[in-house]
Amino acid sequence: MALVGASPNPYSGGYAYAVHLLQDFKGKFYFVNPRAKEVLGVRTYPSLLDLPGEVDYVICCISAEKVPSLLEECSRKGVKLVHLFTARMSETGREEGERLEGEIVEKARRLGLRVLGPNCMGLYNPEVGLTYGYSFPEEPGPVGGIFQSGGLSTDFVHYGYLRGLRFSRVVSYGNGRDLDEVELLRYFSWHPSTRVVAMYVEGVREGRRFAEALREVSSRKPVVVLKGGRGRTGARAIRSHTASVAGGREVWRAVLRWGGAVEVGSFEELLDQVVAFTFLPPCRGRRVAVLGGGGGKSVLSADLWEEEGFELPDLSPSLRERLREMCPGEWDWVGNPVDFSILQERPVMPQEWLELMEESGDFDFFVFNLTEDDPLPEEVWRFWMEEQVNGLLRFKKRGRPLLAVVPSAGLDPREMSKWRWGAIGEIRRRLVEAGVPVFPSVERAARALRRFVDYWERRPAAPSPSCS
Amino acid sequence: MALVGASPNPYSGGYAYAVHLLQDFKGKFYFVNPRAKEVLGVRTYPSLLDLPGEVDYVICCISAEKVPSLLEECSRKGVKLVHLFTARMSETGREEGERLEGEIVEKARRLGLRVLGPNCMGLYNPEVGLTYGYSFPEEPGPVGGIFQSGGLSTDFVHYGYLRGLRFSRVVSYGNGRDLDEVELLRYFSWHPSTRVVAMYVEGVREGRRFAEALREVSSRKPVVVLKGGRGRTGARAIRSHTASVAGGREVWRAVLRWGGAVEVGSFEELLDQVVAFTFLPPCRGRRVAVLGGGGGKSVLSADLWEEEGFELPDLSPSLRERLREMCPGEWDWVGNPVDFSILQERPVMPQEWLELMEESGDFDFFVFNLTEDDPLPEEVWRFWMEEQVNGLLRFKKRGRPLLAVVPSAGLDPREMSKWRWGAIGEIRRRLVEAGVPVFPSVERAARALRRFVDYWERRPAAPSPSCS
Repeated sequence: MALVGASPNPYSGGYAYAVHLLQDFKGKFYFVNPRAKEVLGVRTYPSLLDLPGEVDYVICCISAEKVPSLLEECSRKGVKLVHLFTARMSETGREEGERLEGEIVEKARRLGLRVLGPNCMGLYNPEVGLTYGYSFPEEPGPVGGIFQSGGLSTDFVHYGYLRGLRFSRVVSYGNGRDLDEVELLRYFSWHPSTRVVAMYVEGVREGRRFAEALREVSSRKPVVVLKGGRGRTGARAIRSHTASVAGGREVWRAVLRWGGAVEVGSFEELLDQVVAFTFLPPCRGRRVAVLGGGGGKSVLSADLWEEEGFELPDLSPSLRERLREMCPGEWDWVGNPVDFSILQERPVMPQEWLELMEESGDFDFFVFNLTEDDPLPEEVWRFWMEEQVNGLLRFKKRGRPLLAVVPSAGLDPREMSKWRWGAIGEIRRRLVEAGVPVFPSVERAARALRRFVDYWERRPAAPSPSCS
Repeated sequence: MALVGASPNPYSGGYAYAVHLLQDFKGKFYFVNPRAKEVLGVRTYPSLLDLPGEVDYVICCISAEKVPSLLEECSRKGVKLVHLFTARMSETGREEGERLEGEIVEKARRLGLRVLGPNCMGLYNPEVGLTYGYSFPEEPGPVGGIFQSGGLSTDFVHYGYLRGLRFSRVVSYGNGRDLDEVELLRYFSWHPSTRVVAMYVEGVREGRRFAEALREVSSRKPVVVLKGGRGRTGARAIRSHTASVAGGREVWRAVLRWGGAVEVGSFEELLDQVVAFTFLPPCRGRRVAVLGGGGGKSVLSADLWEEEGFELPDLSPSLRERLREMCPGEWDWVGNPVDFSILQERPVMPQEWLELMEESGDFDFFVFNLTEDDPLPEEVWRFWMEEQVNGLLRFKKRGRPLLAVVPSAGLDPREMSKWRWGAIGEIRRRLVEAGVPVFPSVERAARALRRFVDYWERRPAAPSPSCS
């Protein structure tokens, strides 16, 4: 690898990539900068042609007008792929930017080079320690990402990490002028360790190729798509972001649906959806068991799950018969959702509830509202929360679709040092580390689960070999 | 005040109220418990009639069947209001519970006593240090609350606190068999320090009285209503929660609309809506200026704001003329939303952007996306975030409708100790403390703002004195 434009200026991309290569990259790399002797203590070379070893991959952080001559050098050096962090091309909306971008891509094709970008953050591949963001996780995982926005891809890794997501490859491809979303989709289609693909796309150049690629991948693994530029202003904004053409909202919806993709509307929905696909086994049913929390939370949970098309079957007569012995004071009164505040003496513990409901065979999903609003003093509160979490984690081993709702608040270090918020944070982490999908609200959980079940119901058939 | 049923058992309500009275209450109080000599070091009395001083208000934590005889004692002691934390009455769905509840209310009326509850947490009034939750704030504020669920009211105080909300009174009224939502609404209508009312309601006994009360309050101050039990299962769940009758979804919608209330669908929306009303000046316009963040976030912001009915006017020719001098490299390229990643040299700083846009007169709202995804090393990142926050806080002094979107993640103490999350937490706290409404996502901000503008557009006229 070579970083062309390695820089000592900490505001620049050439600095950030130098730091990441130094700290994380497991292979051999060189820095190129004709005006510096060293960057971050690493010797630099005046040009690509001066490098002593071979180079497959170049990260380019020099200014746009210098790129064409760099491509010549790349070709002579036997480089395969050039990642253009370099921007200010077609996305400026100016004629010279557009012309330069066209010239670069044309030249690369003539020279047999592939180009990623321009105007993008490039590749995050934890297997080889290639990264473009600060504090990206080192360990790999099953989530692939195709992002037309580098910032959103960074957020996706940062916030996804906290939800337990780990990544196989994440690609920020910017203007996507050469290597495009269709090739990236096809790559992930066959990439063995990628089990779910997240995508942020602003526009595509060839709708039919895109739809077909989408359908192919979706038959093998879920593809969650966030389309940017759905409205008038968004369409204007993407012209200055990646110079893409937005396309009509209805056309997009039809394409995504035909392609078997799971469409989401916001960054938070993208995260939630990928969390659902990563941690839950496939499931087509819509009968939900909801447990935990007090009366108000139970009522609102019922409303929100129903509003997303789920059903909350009441406890069956035979289940109530079993309850009659266990909680003679509440067996006829309590229902689904199981309002824990009704069961003040806790005659049936959380794990028992989950198991009873599972054994009834009446439920496809088990949703646990981990509610911190019990008016209990610290020690009792901790004991009761612990009881709930341990029950959840033991039930989790049965392999049934289980998810938890744990509200998240915007905390600062001072609030986090208070026992209640600290304890909730620890609880959330334990659940996440155990592979439980944790959602910050009932609404977000229900929305993600609706699309999850929809996918497993509508999943397109795998294309026959002759068509793909 | 007297706490009847003060208890040394930390799982009980009689213990929790004892702790709160001891720690927080500013007036005189007594504990009543015939089977203990003291609770938490405070002398107890065998009955209400043994108390040496007068009592206005009783918190009742004894079991349901003992309440009727307590009411006799209350009457002889000259008590005005009895809060029945005591539950297991009509909400059990059992005949004896229903009968007992009716008997209690009838008896109270005959004796000239008012009853709050049964089956509720009671009153939180920071002015006199009366509280029912652990870690409720001591300082009062402008938000009133009427909650048919004690758990949701507790969450409202805990999570609202972190968003900067402070409270005048919050009432958890449970089954609301005597003192009901209509009386509580009328109380808040004239309560001088209450500027916005949050309400969680499962059912009302008299629809017309409720609608009229709602309309009266809404003409004076916003009332944000979260209706629980909108669907089939929710309606079933509220019978076992507060024994309310849900009422049809469409009827409710019509009543809330006629009453001028602001309807929300989830707990998170309730919080967001109250935050908007608490911190923003009245506003009827829908032209939004969006600033901050990179390209992808700008595009998605535009989509989400437009999808909630807002308009994002482009920068006007005269504004661009001013920009031409300040940022000759980007003046024609950048737009609204202002994508800060386009302005890599930061030729126009965040505060200048806000001021330029304000001075153009083209915008009603100013939304700042405080984005942490800049690929910068720690020190530079901190400097740039600081620049944005300081700019925001200085602009805030101009009194224009300004709001910030700062994503929140579910953190634990270990993650919070990392510089990035700690710094974002500190930033959020600074904004909240300065009275900036902070939302965790663009989607939630836009949804709250839509209802905010709708309210100011449709606000009912104040009722004429003869009708009210």
